[in-house]
Amino acid sequence: MRRGYDGPVEPRSKVWLEKDGKLALSDYRVRLLRLIDETGSLSDAAAAMDLSYRRAWGKLKEIEQNLGVKLVDTSVGGAGGGGSRLTAEGRRLVECFERFRAAAADDLSDAFSRAFEVDG
Amino acid sequence: MRRGYDGPVEPRSKVWLEKDGKLALSDYRVRLLRLIDETGSLSDAAAAMDLSYRRAWGKLKEIEQNLGVKLVDTSVGGAGGGGSRLTAEGRRLVECFERFRAAAADDLSDAFSRAFEVDG
Repeated sequence: MRRGYDGPVEPRSKVWLEKDGKLALSDYRVRLLRLIDETGSLSDAAAAMDLSYRRAWGKLKEIEQNLGVKLVDTSVGGAGGGGSRLTAEGRRLVECFERFRAAAADDLSDAFSRAFEVDG
Repeated sequence: MRRGYDGPVEPRSKVWLEKDGKLALSDYRVRLLRLIDETGSLSDAAAAMDLSYRRAWGKLKEIEQNLGVKLVDTSVGGAGGGGSRLTAEGRRLVECFERFRAAAADDLSDAFSRAFEVDG
């Protein structure tokens, strides 16, 4: 930016997805889905986010309902004691959102430079 | 997005500027500056944002301090009863931020399409 500013001013952004004007996916929601995928367990994912199991479950159902897709498969009991994992669609959505966030971040400094016409 | 989604999913974003890791400019702050410019009065701008004069003044000083520039000129008394207006640098900053926000919004749908590889 121009002389007169003591230090670098940095552009920042947050992105999310809405459907019918309602929040559909955000960093927070994608973090929950990603943790379910990594831990194979909704209760471990909930604990990692400092959420009750009940709240994490409600959040998951809300995301699925808003998007109209099933994102997580849950198996009950069995040798491994049951668990949760992302459906193929759930995994695709997490990956797409993370690409989207990265692409938006990449574009941001360009938009910033254009808007502020950085001069040396 | 792919079949399976009932309606259009819309990308959204919020942008802001940080300096030394601290918030420097945001939609909210630029709205205050813009209102000072439009009303010619810090107290009218504060009222329009449902802020006390004291809070609006403090916010303004915080923005100026974080950025290290004077953004508003205030005249006390006189025939017009005094008033506040943006400095040239203040006006430039508001315009640049609004261009930045618009540019980021323009880029967003492109980043979204790239990330989600929209198929027909």
